[in-house]
Amino acid sequence: MRERGLLIVLSGPSGVGKGTVRKALFSQEDTNFEYSISATTRKPREGEVNGVDYFFKSREEFETMIKENKLLEWAEYVGNYYGTPIDYVEKTLSEGKDVFLEIEVQGALQVKNAFPEGLFIFLAPPSLSELKNRIVNRGTESEDLINNRMKVAKEEIDMMDAYDYVVENDKVEHACDRIKAIVTAEHCRRDRIAARYKRMLEVE
Amino acid sequence: MRERGLLIVLSGPSGVGKGTVRKALFSQEDTNFEYSISATTRKPREGEVNGVDYFFKSREEFETMIKENKLLEWAEYVGNYYGTPIDYVEKTLSEGKDVFLEIEVQGALQVKNAFPEGLFIFLAPPSLSELKNRIVNRGTESEDLINNRMKVAKEEIDMMDAYDYVVENDKVEHACDRIKAIVTAEHCRRDRIAARYKRMLEVE
Repeated sequence: MRERGLLIVLSGPSGVGKGTVRKALFSQEDTNFEYSISATTRKPREGEVNGVDYFFKSREEFETMIKENKLLEWAEYVGNYYGTPIDYVEKTLSEGKDVFLEIEVQGALQVKNAFPEGLFIFLAPPSLSELKNRIVNRGTESEDLINNRMKVAKEEIDMMDAYDYVVENDKVEHACDRIKAIVTAEHCRRDRIAARYKRMLEVE
Repeated sequence: MRERGLLIVLSGPSGVGKGTVRKALFSQEDTNFEYSISATTRKPREGEVNGVDYFFKSREEFETMIKENKLLEWAEYVGNYYGTPIDYVEKTLSEGKDVFLEIEVQGALQVKNAFPEGLFIFLAPPSLSELKNRIVNRGTESEDLINNRMKVAKEEIDMMDAYDYVVENDKVEHACDRIKAIVTAEHCRRDRIAARYKRMLEVE
């Protein structure tokens, strides 16, 4: 029987660059975890592809998934639903593969309740002012929406204490290196592997 | 004021290759921690240099260091003393640098009592039989000594539970990669950096 995989949850405030870091991670050859694609009711941004970046759903479709318990977590965020289809996550963990979730803070907290043994990584902005610049420069949102997001982000930064690790997104490549190091280290944790190691020794 | 550095303790059973892994780690350019050289009363093996591999001491010299509390830890192991001079460790941690100790299991447990906030990594053999092969192939020890070491090593493997991480020394380069990942990850631990991060946000 294979060991169960690790559930890796990357979250952090809006605009911090979760999606950019996730894409960079999965473009690297030595990344050996499975990405779990989220479902959302928000409209695709330019370049985003259904089934690759997100599963884009109508509100009706999403609410049906909620009712049928088909989501590991879900949240309404700035007027849209975001959530994680549960079937893929369960199947992949049971195959012994690590699953990587990139989700909003509200969803991460729900996952923590359901999977406290998961690995919770908070992607942090180098500063609040830089967070603001990033949102402004994204250029696809109104001032009101940006101010709303800033307020939400300040609240979310206070949520850092719910996480196991904090990775500052000073440079995308550095953030990726740190996330990969965290996953490697977690696989070496004594409390996860001592039992397996002792079993191995007894066999010989 | 700089943050205090991490004390990284690599230990594990005799013959597992602690010294080889330590040398490989410190030959790599991206290793950015300071090595703490141990003191010992055992005789230098071929190629070992005083002040590089160990500080080689007489029993009288070593016992004076014990009496004067000049050692962070010390142990008598297979008839010889091993220990860590305390001054260098304290000075380096207070400068904000990580200190790396490679020591026997008895000494690691003493360090854990004195520095529970340290990072304790157990270097594990892929199997007990391979451990035996390594000791036999070292070719510098008698059969009696080897059998004695095997007995000690079996006891030490039971000590794994005192450590934070277990790194299997299947290949030296893999072990080095895992140790570096563990140190990187520990620097990202939320409980270590959240206070600093929040302070940084408040300044701006």
